[in-house]
Amino acid sequence: MIWRVNLTTGTITQEPVPPEWQGLGGRALTSAIVAAEVPPLADPLGPANKLVFAPGLLGGTTASSSGRLSVGGKSPLTGGIKESNVGGSPGAKLARLGITALIIEGQAAKGQWFVLEVTPKGLGLLDAKDLAGCKIYETVARLRAGRNRHTAVIAIGPAGEMRLSAAAIGVTDIDGIPARHAARGGLAAVMGAKGLKAIVIDDAGSEPVPLADAELFRRTARRFAQALREHPSTGKSLPIYGTSVLVNVINELGGLPTRNFRSGKFEEAERISGEALHDLIVARGGKTTHPCMAGCVIRCSNVFLNAKGEEQTRGFEYESIVMMGANCGIGDLDVLARMNRLCDEYGLDTIEIGNTLAVAMEAGLAEFGDGEKAIALIKEIGAGTPLGRILGHGAAVTGRVFSVSRVPVVKGQGLPAYDPRALKGTGVTFATSPMGADHTAGNALPGTVLPGVGKLDTKQREHQVELSRYLQELALIFDSVGLCWFTRGPILADNSLLLDLLKGRFGREFSMDDLWAMSRETLRRELAFNRAAGFGPQDDRLPDFFLTEPLPPYGLIFDISEDELQETLAGLG
Amino acid sequence: MIWRVNLTTGTITQEPVPPEWQGLGGRALTSAIVAAEVPPLADPLGPANKLVFAPGLLGGTTASSSGRLSVGGKSPLTGGIKESNVGGSPGAKLARLGITALIIEGQAAKGQWFVLEVTPKGLGLLDAKDLAGCKIYETVARLRAGRNRHTAVIAIGPAGEMRLSAAAIGVTDIDGIPARHAARGGLAAVMGAKGLKAIVIDDAGSEPVPLADAELFRRTARRFAQALREHPSTGKSLPIYGTSVLVNVINELGGLPTRNFRSGKFEEAERISGEALHDLIVARGGKTTHPCMAGCVIRCSNVFLNAKGEEQTRGFEYESIVMMGANCGIGDLDVLARMNRLCDEYGLDTIEIGNTLAVAMEAGLAEFGDGEKAIALIKEIGAGTPLGRILGHGAAVTGRVFSVSRVPVVKGQGLPAYDPRALKGTGVTFATSPMGADHTAGNALPGTVLPGVGKLDTKQREHQVELSRYLQELALIFDSVGLCWFTRGPILADNSLLLDLLKGRFGREFSMDDLWAMSRETLRRELAFNRAAGFGPQDDRLPDFFLTEPLPPYGLIFDISEDELQETLAGLG
Repeated sequence: MIWRVNLTTGTITQEPVPPEWQGLGGRALTSAIVAAEVPPLADPLGPANKLVFAPGLLGGTTASSSGRLSVGGKSPLTGGIKESNVGGSPGAKLARLGITALIIEGQAAKGQWFVLEVTPKGLGLLDAKDLAGCKIYETVARLRAGRNRHTAVIAIGPAGEMRLSAAAIGVTDIDGIPARHAARGGLAAVMGAKGLKAIVIDDAGSEPVPLADAELFRRTARRFAQALREHPSTGKSLPIYGTSVLVNVINELGGLPTRNFRSGKFEEAERISGEALHDLIVARGGKTTHPCMAGCVIRCSNVFLNAKGEEQTRGFEYESIVMMGANCGIGDLDVLARMNRLCDEYGLDTIEIGNTLAVAMEAGLAEFGDGEKAIALIKEIGAGTPLGRILGHGAAVTGRVFSVSRVPVVKGQGLPAYDPRALKGTGVTFATSPMGADHTAGNALPGTVLPGVGKLDTKQREHQVELSRYLQELALIFDSVGLCWFTRGPILADNSLLLDLLKGRFGREFSMDDLWAMSRETLRRELAFNRAAGFGPQDDRLPDFFLTEPLPPYGLIFDISEDELQETLAGLG
Repeated sequence: MIWRVNLTTGTITQEPVPPEWQGLGGRALTSAIVAAEVPPLADPLGPANKLVFAPGLLGGTTASSSGRLSVGGKSPLTGGIKESNVGGSPGAKLARLGITALIIEGQAAKGQWFVLEVTPKGLGLLDAKDLAGCKIYETVARLRAGRNRHTAVIAIGPAGEMRLSAAAIGVTDIDGIPARHAARGGLAAVMGAKGLKAIVIDDAGSEPVPLADAELFRRTARRFAQALREHPSTGKSLPIYGTSVLVNVINELGGLPTRNFRSGKFEEAERISGEALHDLIVARGGKTTHPCMAGCVIRCSNVFLNAKGEEQTRGFEYESIVMMGANCGIGDLDVLARMNRLCDEYGLDTIEIGNTLAVAMEAGLAEFGDGEKAIALIKEIGAGTPLGRILGHGAAVTGRVFSVSRVPVVKGQGLPAYDPRALKGTGVTFATSPMGADHTAGNALPGTVLPGVGKLDTKQREHQVELSRYLQELALIFDSVGLCWFTRGPILADNSLLLDLLKGRFGREFSMDDLWAMSRETLRRELAFNRAAGFGPQDDRLPDFFLTEPLPPYGLIFDISEDELQETLAGLG
């Protein structure tokens, strides 16, 4: 069912999935809905924008890592269409409650705040004025108190309430802790503009999702789990070291954003590496190999304790650690864990904030490497001071206000932790994705195989455009079926894993061609939305300094031409 | 001659006017140079942008009101091509020194400041570190001290040095006081980014500009002056009441921007009207009927004294008084005069600041009508605090940072003092001009005659697109010959006034067709630049609220469709 919750009128309605949206899930569905129902020129913070939550096609099943949730809308950060993808527990629960998509519409009167309650009995809006201004951990604790301990929460913090463009939507993990985020694109500001503080999801008593061929599904799910366990990435490095296993890899490559993308190697990389993080967590009795969602066999998350043995933060990831760390010249995991927790409390995108702090440092507001000052600047955001509001709107606004020219953004969105001069396929994705600079939109890591060509050196310029297009389309498939991108290794090795899961779930044959077609159609819709919102070829480029400043230590520049970039998604746009 | 001053290298060169720029002046010339030499995607605050000063074709002559100066570049406010037009004394002096255009290029090292000295002996750069941070009145006084008393100065204040997008370039008037401004589009930030604090122009000993037919020129200049004296606007209302004569007219019409464009009538309009201003100036012994440039017979400027009889401000104009006054709910000329002086000291665009303060009031930073708080907010800009930097970047940035949805800007530039719902032809110009919302780009005031159609009611929707195009092309002619737009009455009644002045000056026949062709070619260049900079049809529109919120008291909306707006400059773009 499609559920609509209108904050202007307070009405809640449900409708069957219309034919044109049947067979879509996750990003394919959120983008179809946004493209169909949001005027491209709408004010992202006005009543005409919509916020859409959709689990993937495999959401709610027992397949490993299948509970990813897509959040869509017109982004206040980029001004374009956006899908922000998150793990944690709400995705599977929405799916089990039979919710194909949840569409938040309209806008509550100024100063009014609501919580949306979702249970097997239906949906209801509760007054939430008492939660106004409340940080996310406390918001979640109060909303979960007295409820079933598996209750999931989706919530915004002060940043979303202030409608800041770098605001992230917090989502509870397997333990009910809001450590996962639909962070990119400022969709929490859209939620805040609507007056929706949180969504509480209690699926106790719900039925399992129906399986058309339960036997095929279960057999395939077991094969899939086994393949994930046997794969070197999902079976070993990710469970042990988490996503930060990439720190040493990308630093070695000379592509680790350091001091506002001035270098590709950080002299303190070892101190913030996955290996160092693992050892520190283990020494203090925290958790590695921690799942963000039930049933995930990869378990790449973690729980980080401070020196006193208290939980400081969790879901402490590569992107956060590099963008707030190396990119700000900060090499201390304890400082970074405090920054991460603050961002999670206020509800802020750590990638955007890492970029923002580095731009602020470039402007002279702090020295690179000054962690205490960085923490003080994040606190300004939480306090909503004028400086805090500037920073809370992200790197582009901060650069504009402080007249900084070196601002690493595409379509207004700060770059994730891969310098495009050293990882050129990723750079092509950053430049051309309708999502703006987004590593989840098609990340060309070392070792990625381009079918028909083979593995590319991330620093070569040949074939990167093809590789980016291939990965952009591929990532969209994963974000639409609801599987974590990390599961791609086994699935690319054996497509039947994915196709049989879909067949077992829905009872009809799926082919990879069907999925590629869905992906391309979605990209086409997203590009059309952005074009109507005013985007042109001039928006599909990296900031000049990536083209002109050689990146130390290897002297690399981003040398893929604008014409080549325009070819990336040609035929779709 | 074309002079180039490169702040990166310190080199100064001159070259003859190349064939393609011969016959161009003012805006036609600045736009031709910017379009030819500035990459459309250049950082406006980077070394690739250029700042171009060009007097009009009649600059330096004895024709009344012929000393307007065009300043061009890529705007940090709009991101597009910009021409900002200013009176005062530098235009005529540059022309008398034989300078067809002065092109400022490159960028000084950070922290370095220079003054450019322009005399009949040539041009030279002087170190100006001691002027860093200096407000404009003091900057000008120090630069004029010990020089010929007719020395003119073009200078930026702290706002330009901070590279704020609402920064204005100050220009000295007939008395050597920096009361005139090339204000729109933030070109002072470009000057600041280049490290150029001021230009000092001493033309003592220069030759008069050559006249090909001196007798024809003098005879026509006399006819022109006489016609200006006899015209009701330039002969009577402007000299007596100044530009603020419009306050009552536009208020009566219901188009006076009031409290962030929430109403078209201001209940205190009478208190800030041209009549009230005139009486207060006269009662205190200030000056009305004051010329901004030598030889002007209109003399619409003024010198405003405070209650103690001291000079408070001058060049105290309609736009400043309405946008900082009615639009902020402030009905006190003494408060507005203090605000005006502060803007002139810091070097700020009063139109942009009026819009910005109103948006800040909408965000709750001050109450509408609170003049002392408004003054305090302007002082924040001068002090360069985080709040000041937000405000100093104008209404769009302020609206973004404080998440305000009702932000009256087009292409990032705040609207001048005409509500487009009541003055629809002006609204079409605001929406479609390559300059962004700019009243100097084609202002359809009550009583304007559209050739072949007649006078239009400013509230009717018919013919406004034609009227705007006609006025946009016409204004460009005036801004290219260097004549004040206020002289259009006599010239439209008798084209030979303009054509004979040009013939007397250059010795060849000019036709109105030649001038229209020059105007259209310039618009074409400007539109092409903007397209290459990323502008599309989506940028040629007014903010939604003008289309949806009926304007009290007459309930008007802006009902000219996007398709009609696209027709305005069709065939040029």
